Amino acid sequence: MPYRAQTRDILFLLENVVGFDAVLAARGDGLDRETVAQVIGEAGNLCEGVIAPLQRAGDLHPARLENGQVVTSPGFRDGYRALAEGGWVGISAPEEFGGMELPRSVGMALHDMLAASCLSLQLNPLMTQGQIHALEAHADAEIKALYLPKLIAGDWAGTMGLTEPQAGSDVGALRTRAEPNGDGTYSITGQKIFISWGDSDLTENIAQLVLARLPDAPAGTRGISLFLVPKFLPIPDGSLGDRNAIRPVSLEHKMGLHGSPTAVMEFTGATGWRIGPENGGMAAMFTMMNDARLGVGIQGIGVAEAACQKAQEYAAERRQGRTAGPDGTIDEHPDVRRMLAVMRARVFAARAIALACATALDLEALTGDPAARARAAFLTPIAKAYGTETGIAVSDMGIQVHGGMGFIEETGAAQYLRDVRVTAIYEGTNGIQAMDLVGRKLADGGEAAMALLDEIERAAEAARAAFPVIAGAVWDAAEDLREATEWMLGQPAEARFAGAVAYLEAFALVLGGHFHLAAARAEGTSGARAALARTYVKRLLPRHAALLAEAMQGADDLAGITDEALCP
Amino acid sequence: MPYRAQTRDILFLLENVVGFDAVLAARGDGLDRETVAQVIGEAGNLCEGVIAPLQRAGDLHPARLENGQVVTSPGFRDGYRALAEGGWVGISAPEEFGGMELPRSVGMALHDMLAASCLSLQLNPLMTQGQIHALEAHADAEIKALYLPKLIAGDWAGTMGLTEPQAGSDVGALRTRAEPNGDGTYSITGQKIFISWGDSDLTENIAQLVLARLPDAPAGTRGISLFLVPKFLPIPDGSLGDRNAIRPVSLEHKMGLHGSPTAVMEFTGATGWRIGPENGGMAAMFTMMNDARLGVGIQGIGVAEAACQKAQEYAAERRQGRTAGPDGTIDEHPDVRRMLAVMRARVFAARAIALACATALDLEALTGDPAARARAAFLTPIAKAYGTETGIAVSDMGIQVHGGMGFIEETGAAQYLRDVRVTAIYEGTNGIQAMDLVGRKLADGGEAAMALLDEIERAAEAARAAFPVIAGAVWDAAEDLREATEWMLGQPAEARFAGAVAYLEAFALVLGGHFHLAAARAEGTSGARAALARTYVKRLLPRHAALLAEAMQGADDLAGITDEALCP
Repeated sequence: MPYRAQTRDILFLLENVVGFDAVLAARGDGLDRETVAQVIGEAGNLCEGVIAPLQRAGDLHPARLENGQVVTSPGFRDGYRALAEGGWVGISAPEEFGGMELPRSVGMALHDMLAASCLSLQLNPLMTQGQIHALEAHADAEIKALYLPKLIAGDWAGTMGLTEPQAGSDVGALRTRAEPNGDGTYSITGQKIFISWGDSDLTENIAQLVLARLPDAPAGTRGISLFLVPKFLPIPDGSLGDRNAIRPVSLEHKMGLHGSPTAVMEFTGATGWRIGPENGGMAAMFTMMNDARLGVGIQGIGVAEAACQKAQEYAAERRQGRTAGPDGTIDEHPDVRRMLAVMRARVFAARAIALACATALDLEALTGDPAARARAAFLTPIAKAYGTETGIAVSDMGIQVHGGMGFIEETGAAQYLRDVRVTAIYEGTNGIQAMDLVGRKLADGGEAAMALLDEIERAAEAARAAFPVIAGAVWDAAEDLREATEWMLGQPAEARFAGAVAYLEAFALVLGGHFHLAAARAEGTSGARAALARTYVKRLLPRHAALLAEAMQGADDLAGITDEALCP
Repeated sequence: MPYRAQTRDILFLLENVVGFDAVLAARGDGLDRETVAQVIGEAGNLCEGVIAPLQRAGDLHPARLENGQVVTSPGFRDGYRALAEGGWVGISAPEEFGGMELPRSVGMALHDMLAASCLSLQLNPLMTQGQIHALEAHADAEIKALYLPKLIAGDWAGTMGLTEPQAGSDVGALRTRAEPNGDGTYSITGQKIFISWGDSDLTENIAQLVLARLPDAPAGTRGISLFLVPKFLPIPDGSLGDRNAIRPVSLEHKMGLHGSPTAVMEFTGATGWRIGPENGGMAAMFTMMNDARLGVGIQGIGVAEAACQKAQEYAAERRQGRTAGPDGTIDEHPDVRRMLAVMRARVFAARAIALACATALDLEALTGDPAARARAAFLTPIAKAYGTETGIAVSDMGIQVHGGMGFIEETGAAQYLRDVRVTAIYEGTNGIQAMDLVGRKLADGGEAAMALLDEIERAAEAARAAFPVIAGAVWDAAEDLREATEWMLGQPAEARFAGAVAYLEAFALVLGGHFHLAAARAEGTSGARAALARTYVKRLLPRHAALLAEAMQGADDLAGITDEALCP
C-alpha cells in the first residue's frame, strides 16, 4: 500500500486538541474548518499522487553538479512544478503578493505531509517559505515587490547561507565579507558550506540570504549583517539579468537526503542587497531560523509518519511464527504490536506539540498577545528537538519491525532513518535547542513554562473522573516537571546545560501525555485514541522520571570525567 | 588520530572485573595474564595497522558479483591474508587442528578490536569461528580432519544458511530439500537468502552449514537437518575437486556493511554432508547461533568503541563557541561532555557484560559446571541485544557530536551507524533475544537470574562503605529487578513477551552498574573509572525504573490497540 496522507490525524488535532478554532476566530474573515479541511485534503492528494513517488529516485540518483550547475534527481522538476503551480509554496504568504495567506498551522500541516512524501524535495519549499517570512518582516518595499511574488509563485526559490567551515553552531565566527558598492548594493566575498538547495534546476532563480561582515564591523554576532544574493540579478520588471558571482563549488556526499543538494557556495564579489540594519543581521536571520526550526521539527514528524505507515503495512502482511491472533501476521506478536503502538503514540505526541506551537505562532501574529508569543517561543525548541528525535527513533523502530528486510535499501525503511538523521543536527543541533530552552526560554523566570504546566494540570484535573489512570499519570509527571523547572531556575548556566537535553525530552513527554489525554477526552473512553493514550502513559511517559533525575544532576559528575576516563 | 586498539580496557576488564583469572586457573596449563596480554597486544597491532585502514574502502566499493563470483572490496584480500597468516581465525580453536586454543574470552577480545576496525571484514572470520565450533561439537572425525585444519588456517571460510524468504525468524518454515544420494552424501536443493559472506574471493573454498529437510521429515523445527555444503568438493588429501552446485545469485543493496557480501545462494542438487543426527539439525545449528549471538553483541561493542574514539577525537580538536575550559574545544561544552561520557560509560558496561558471558562460556567448557552454563546461557541474549543496541546508540551519539560533519560520509561517523544497524536484527532480532530471555532463560524458575542478582547485591554491599552512592544505586536497582523477575515468573508468555525488550534492557543496565562498581573498586575512589561509574549510575542506570514499569505492564494495553488506533 503506498503512502496515505495523514489528513485525518492532522484535522483531528487541529479541531480537537491544539485549539485551532481560536485562530479561525481571531482571523474573523470567514475562514472555517470546512475550507481548511478541503485545503489539507487537496494537499494530501498532491502528496500521495505526485510527491511520494519521488522518494526513492531522490535517494538512488542524488542531485549532482554538472558544468557548474546542479542537476536534480529524476522527477523532481515535475514534482516541484506541481507544487508551485498549486500555489503551495506560498500557502502562508500574504495574498497581497499572491499567497494563500492561510494560517501557519495549515502550512505546517502541508509540510508534515510533504516531508512524509519526499523529505529531500520538501526541504526546498520549506526554505523558500522561511525566506518569504524573513523578507516580509525585514525587507524594504522595493525588495518585497520584486522578490515576494516570484518566491510565492515558486518561480524562484529561497535558501540561506550561514555556515562556514569555522562557523557552524558559532555563527558569530563567520568571515564572509560585504563591501559597499556605493550604489546601495554590496559586494559579497567568501565561502559558505552546508547550503541546502544552494543551487538547483528546479527554479529559474535562487535567492540566498547570506550573513556577512561589513568593513570594520564589530567582532562576533554583533558585527553581522544580512544580504540577499540572487543567482541571477533581477531587473525591476521581474525578468532576469546577468548571472551573479555566486556558484556551487561542490556537493556533499551525505548519509541521506541525497535528493537535496547540499552545496559549498562561493561568492566572488557577488552583488547583494542588505536586508535590515547594518550589523543587525542576526535578528533578521532569527526570523528565518525560528521559522525553520519548527519546520524542521515537522520534517521529523512527517518522516516518522511515513516510517510508521510502512512498518504497519509490512507487519500486517508478513507471516512468521505462531501468533495468538487470527491472521498469523507479525503485528499479532506482542513485541511487534508494542513497537507499532509506541511508534504511533510517539508520532501523535510530537505532531500535537508542533501544531500547538504553530497555533501559538498564528495567534501571536493575529493578536500580538504576549502570552501566545511566549508560548510559541517556548514550544519551538521542544517541537524541533522532539519532532526530529521522534523521526529518528520511529524510523529506527520501523527498520526493526521489518527484520532483515529493514536493512535492505529496496524496502525503503532504511532511507527514512538516513534522511531524517540530519534533522537533529541542522537549524541548531538538538543540544542547542535544549540550551535555548533552559537558557533563553527560561529567562522569563519560568513564566512560560509554568503557564504550560498550569494548563496541563488543569486539564488533567478536569479529565480525572473519566480517565483516572491517564490523567493521574499526566498530573504527577507535570508536578515532577514543575519541580525540575524550579531547580533549573536556581542554577547557573553550566549546570542547566548539563541537564538540558534530558529536561527538554521530559518536557516533551509530559506535553505529549497532555495532548494524548485531550485526544482521549475528545473521542471518549472506549475510542482508539484512548487506547493509544494508555499505551503512551504506560510505555513512554514513565521515562520522564529518569530524564528529570538526569536533568537535575548538574555538571558536577561531568567535571570528574577526565580525558583518561574517556580514553581508557 | 587513527583508531587505537582498546587493549587496555579489555585487559582491565579481564583482570579486574569479569573474573578471567578463574579461567586461567581452570586451564591449569600455565597460560598466564602476561601471555594473554601479549596476544591481545599483537592482535591490537594488526587491527590498528592492517585492518582499520580498510574500513572506508569497504563502504565505498561494496563487494560485487561478477561472472557468478563475488569480488571483494579493495584491500580486503590482503587484510584477510594477514589475519589468516597470523593464525587469528583459529584463536580459540583446538591445537590438534592447528588452532591457538586460547580461551573464548580472548577470542572475543580479538573480535571486539576487529569489529572496531572493519566490521564488514570481521564478519567473515566470525562466521568461520562459529562453524569451527559447530563442527568440533557435532561433526564426525572424518569431516573434522578434512575441514577443521583448513578453516582454522583461514584457507577456507565458513558461513551458515538458515534464512529463506518465508522462513526468517521462524526457521521451522524452511523448505530447502536434502535427498540421500545413497553414498552417505545428500543432494541439496533450494534457495537461501541473507547469507553473509555466502561467496567471496578471500578464500579458496567456502563451507556452508545449511539447514534443510529430508524427505518425509516432520513439519516445523523437528524436521530440520544440518548439512555441510562446500563450494568446491574437497578431496581427502585436502586439495580441491569439482565445483559444487551452489552459487550466489545476487547480492543485497544494504544500508551499511557494504564490504560484506550478503548473498542469495542457490542450491541445485549440491552435494552435502549431514552434520549431526537426521532431523536433529536445530541443536547443532544452535551451537553455531549461540556462538554467533555473543559474537554479534561484540560486533556492536567494537563499533561503539570506534564511534567513541572518533567522536572524542573530533570534540577534542573542534573549536566552536565559548567554553568554560582552557582549550575552547567543544568537548568542554557540558552537553558534549555529557554525550562523550555517556557513550564511554555505555561501551564499558556492554563490553563487561559480553566478556562476563565469554568467561562463563570458558568456565563451562573447562569445568562443565552447570552454574557456569546457566550463567552463560542467561547472559548470551543480554550480551547480544545490549551490545548491539549500544553499537547503535553510541554510533548515533557519535554522529551528533560531529554536528553537520556527522552527516557527511567522508567523516566516517555515519558509516558506523549504517554498518552496525543490522546487528540488532541478524542472528535473531533483539526482540527475539528478549523473548529468549524471559522465556527459555527464565524456564529454570529464575535460578540463573537470581544467582546473578545475589552476586550483584553481595558486591554492592561489600562496596557500600567506599562507594555509597554508586553501590546504593546498584543495590536498589537490583532489588527492583528482582521484583520484576518474580513478576515475570508468574506470567503467561503473552504478558512476558510484551515486556521482554524492556526487561532485558533493565537487566543489562543493572549488570552494567555492577561492573562499573567493580571497576571503580579495582581502581579506587579517585580514579577515572570511579568517575565514569558515577556518571553511569546518575545518567544511565535511573532508566531501569521506567523500563521495569513497562516490563510489568503485561499485554493488556496492547490488546486495546486496534488497527484504527495505529492508522488514525
